[in-house]
Amino acid sequence: MRKVGIIGLGHVGATLAYTLVMESLVDELVLIDKNEQLAVSEQYDLEDAQVFLTGKTKILIQDYQALKDAAIIVFCAGQISALGEDGDRFKELEITSKIVEETAPKIKQSGFTGIILTITNPCDVIAAYMQKLTGFETSKVFGTGTMLDTARMKQAVSRNLAIDGRNIGGYVYGEHGDSQFVAWSTVTVGDQPLLSWNTELDLESLDEDVRAGGWKAFFGKGYTSYGIATCAARLIRMILNDSKSIVPVSAYSHKLDAYYGQPVVIGKNGVESFVDCSLSEKESGLLTHSIQIIKNGLDKLPFKQ
Amino acid sequence: MRKVGIIGLGHVGATLAYTLVMESLVDELVLIDKNEQLAVSEQYDLEDAQVFLTGKTKILIQDYQALKDAAIIVFCAGQISALGEDGDRFKELEITSKIVEETAPKIKQSGFTGIILTITNPCDVIAAYMQKLTGFETSKVFGTGTMLDTARMKQAVSRNLAIDGRNIGGYVYGEHGDSQFVAWSTVTVGDQPLLSWNTELDLESLDEDVRAGGWKAFFGKGYTSYGIATCAARLIRMILNDSKSIVPVSAYSHKLDAYYGQPVVIGKNGVESFVDCSLSEKESGLLTHSIQIIKNGLDKLPFKQ
Amino acid sequence: MRKVGIIGLGHVGATLAYTLVMESLVDELVLIDKNEQLAVSEQYDLEDAQVFLTGKTKILIQDYQALKDAAIIVFCAGQISALGEDGDRFKELEITSKIVEETAPKIKQSGFTGIILTITNPCDVIAAYMQKLTGFETSKVFGTGTMLDTARMKQAVSRNLAIDGRNIGGYVYGEHGDSQFVAWSTVTVGDQPLLSWNTELDLESLDEDVRAGGWKAFFGKGYTSYGIATCAARLIRMILNDSKSIVPVSAYSHKLDAYYGQPVVIGKNGVESFVDCSLSEKESGLLTHSIQIIKNGLDKLPFKQ
Amino acid sequence: MRKVGIIGLGHVGATLAYTLVMESLVDELVLIDKNEQLAVSEQYDLEDAQVFLTGKTKILIQDYQALKDAAIIVFCAGQISALGEDGDRFKELEITSKIVEETAPKIKQSGFTGIILTITNPCDVIAAYMQKLTGFETSKVFGTGTMLDTARMKQAVSRNLAIDGRNIGGYVYGEHGDSQFVAWSTVTVGDQPLLSWNTELDLESLDEDVRAGGWKAFFGKGYTSYGIATCAARLIRMILNDSKSIVPVSAYSHKLDAYYGQPVVIGKNGVESFVDCSLSEKESGLLTHSIQIIKNGLDKLPFKQ
Repeated sequence: MRKVGIIGLGHVGATLAYTLVMESLVDELVLIDKNEQLAVSEQYDLEDAQVFLTGKTKILIQDYQALKDAAIIVFCAGQISALGEDGDRFKELEITSKIVEETAPKIKQSGFTGIILTITNPCDVIAAYMQKLTGFETSKVFGTGTMLDTARMKQAVSRNLAIDGRNIGGYVYGEHGDSQFVAWSTVTVGDQPLLSWNTELDLESLDEDVRAGGWKAFFGKGYTSYGIATCAARLIRMILNDSKSIVPVSAYSHKLDAYYGQPVVIGKNGVESFVDCSLSEKESGLLTHSIQIIKNGLDKLPFKQ
Repeated sequence: MRKVGIIGLGHVGATLAYTLVMESLVDELVLIDKNEQLAVSEQYDLEDAQVFLTGKTKILIQDYQALKDAAIIVFCAGQISALGEDGDRFKELEITSKIVEETAPKIKQSGFTGIILTITNPCDVIAAYMQKLTGFETSKVFGTGTMLDTARMKQAVSRNLAIDGRNIGGYVYGEHGDSQFVAWSTVTVGDQPLLSWNTELDLESLDEDVRAGGWKAFFGKGYTSYGIATCAARLIRMILNDSKSIVPVSAYSHKLDAYYGQPVVIGKNGVESFVDCSLSEKESGLLTHSIQIIKNGLDKLPFKQ
Repeated sequence: MRKVGIIGLGHVGATLAYTLVMESLVDELVLIDKNEQLAVSEQYDLEDAQVFLTGKTKILIQDYQALKDAAIIVFCAGQISALGEDGDRFKELEITSKIVEETAPKIKQSGFTGIILTITNPCDVIAAYMQKLTGFETSKVFGTGTMLDTARMKQAVSRNLAIDGRNIGGYVYGEHGDSQFVAWSTVTVGDQPLLSWNTELDLESLDEDVRAGGWKAFFGKGYTSYGIATCAARLIRMILNDSKSIVPVSAYSHKLDAYYGQPVVIGKNGVESFVDCSLSEKESGLLTHSIQIIKNGLDKLPFKQ
Repeated sequence: MRKVGIIGLGHVGATLAYTLVMESLVDELVLIDKNEQLAVSEQYDLEDAQVFLTGKTKILIQDYQALKDAAIIVFCAGQISALGEDGDRFKELEITSKIVEETAPKIKQSGFTGIILTITNPCDVIAAYMQKLTGFETSKVFGTGTMLDTARMKQAVSRNLAIDGRNIGGYVYGEHGDSQFVAWSTVTVGDQPLLSWNTELDLESLDEDVRAGGWKAFFGKGYTSYGIATCAARLIRMILNDSKSIVPVSAYSHKLDAYYGQPVVIGKNGVESFVDCSLSEKESGLLTHSIQIIKNGLDKLPFKQ
């Protein structure tokens, strides 16, 4: 039996729940939110939807004990209104770190021994904080990180080249936030290096398109939901299927003692290994900078003695 | 090529767009909203999601001309805040009827000749009004009507009997609103009459459960989205597949000169025929009453000379 | 983790494996056949297919020990060439009963404690024999029985009425073989009794169409595969999802001390309860006769002292 | 409406039909085979399956006129028994070229103006012959070519590295036959060059694994079906979705005046453009050789004056 929990039923958590139900990806889904009425409504709305679908997903709500035998918990509790007007995700940290402090002990108490996937922002800091407060192995706690940013990079390149985004390879590294960067040295089109595909591409202009793409997805809605929910559903499938897939997520590097967005291998044990890309000197510098930003965020939190 | 348009990108329209993208149900999707920024954001969010999916749906926005060769337009523009605190969908009519008045001419001008599926509330009145203002054949304009209410009835019975809702048959008739009713004489479990299944069922209590189910799905969210989006996606598939499926929707009855929720046969031409269930005397009375409510709503609108 | 085993990789077993892989229904699939080369080929062919799919199914072959923690074993070993030229499935019994005798001890030895779904013909006798030789609870061993025949009945009615087969209800009862019958008293169209839908339908002619439908699916191929594989995949989903679905399968009736096709409720524990339809007197007679045929088949097998 | 035709209902054609039905990829499917009884059986078997599915695919058989408004025709008529014992696909040419000669005029007569996808072996020669005899634009006639071989290469690398095959990039070039070769210079793992991933990989041994993989999929069955059917279904989706996807197929190169397996961009117009990979000198030599083999095959056919 496949069982997954979702903590936090904002736009992201609810859309993820719907995605899992639509895809019949799990047999049981545990939904938890601080607003019990909201959890009830999502349960009923998702059950109504199932009359029109083929699979059946049992929806449980507000039950931490039910997480005990779940394979995965997705943590996406947050408060989008806390996001700074300048889009600075660190402004959310004051609120979201508190939610981690409340939630981590409850997860531990439930007896849960699976994998925690964090989406809540600032994503890298929250993944690190959740790992610290639960004491789980670092391989079993990771964040969606730059996986969504990487998808946006692919779509930006796709729009420029009129090639399907699924045929664009490569990674966005670092913070799921302003200091992230596209590692253009890793980007491929049809499995060929981007710059051999079209030597006249202007990477700075593409960089702009990547940034603009994320902003355009956010601006008119005040949040984003479909890209991130589909991303999380994919990660869940990779874990359940033990698929040994390579994707960029916010994973803990022992070498650098930090969580940050980087390509790793995902399987049933979570982050099973790391993928080393030979970044350019400039990219390495950007990565060092980005990791420092993440560490600075973490330093503000109480668990650091 | 399968092409569908969605007018109105509130919770319902956007969730429907996501559902169609997730299911790879159409090749092109045209999204239109009075808020252009919102349309842009949904377009980008849906494109980001596609990096994680198998199919590809081309997303066009704000382009009425692109509707010309669409097979279906889903009309779901509205304003949920206009819904009365008592849940009275007629309070929305003043606003939503205006949107129909603005939209119908644009649909006609586009050269569109397909099927219009309306979700906007009050659903039956809006379906009728859209048909009047476009002048399209009545078979080609219909509303989701009591299809969602029927799903909720199935889930309420399902919860009482511990039987999958997909094994519950039967229909909710009449207005997609307070005057609707479960035609218990039509309800089956495992293709057997409900009352032969369990002779001790209390239909009044079940009636309460049906009503409560809809309310519970709505209350904590302030709207509902997943049930109705999945419902509309199913109808779209039925039309595209020309599947000759029987479902209850808000369709125009020549005999009674009214749009109301009733079982019909859906195919590529829209409402292709009607399904007569022999309602009980009590049910017939409830239907007459419900239809009158719908007609009263329609009488308030200007096209009635 | 969802895990399923398939024993017997003829047309049915292989097509079922492909269906499960296509639908990403399970995480691990154990394939077993007396022909090891065939198992290897199916494994490689199914792995090649996965490059083009989203989900990942781990394929194990020839490993009875791997069945230990499987949720379901599908038994479909047989030899279609043993089928009599007159289509008499009892001619297969001599061979297929031997396969059960070889297989049942291996299933027991593996430590498997899940549900056994049998497809091998004669289906009802083989289900009974498998239950006897494994000693498993009767609720945990059942055959696909008349579920496929019921689908064929629905399609035959569908062709006559130009209504989608999914809107046809009702059941074929009895033996998955010549003595089966459509219980017309249970058949519905759009949740209405068939005979109220169209009072001029000729049931004898429809009976002919049902019979002809099965034959037409078989005749040109010398076997059938897609209907039965999809049927079995649906049953597997019902068990994994614990969906409490009503379907006709070959289940053991304590009352009549026999396995035969009848509607039951399927959940994670297999056959969880029975659905009593009030058959007509004629239908009851046909059922008694059909059950006797099944019992006669069983009487030929050695376990009956 | 999405409409596709399949000519030839052997293992490949029938499995492809089932795949399209399972995925609800098309609204109408036209099945044609020289054996009318077989076509009838597949039609019925596929219709039976649909009772258990959500979508509905209308199945038409033996009707060339119905191909007129199809978007795609898949040509997979052949005779696997004609394959030489040594696996030489050119032994099939004598028979399959005759089938092309019979079929091409019927396709033209139907008024069909879409895209022809050929699977029949020897794939490259048959694609070329079909293009010649129909006179269709070369961009609108192409073969599955090395797309399946590329999938097998990915799985062989996947098994060696314990990384999901979907994360392996690169291409098999040339003939869909013995003279094909893996262009190792194009192969990537996680979007990184293969040889930077693991510098100790033995490419000759991997070459062996690729070859062995194809053989293992074939040997025990005497044919392969699931990999190739899923491959063709993917191509069909790419065309219908106009997805601008990069895949290796057997496409016509004006420069080299030959059909051969190479990466191209697939969209609604078929082969919309070509992807130039900078092959190594050794690979270029292998390609020249492989193309010559294909040309030699074509030279045996009557249309060459």
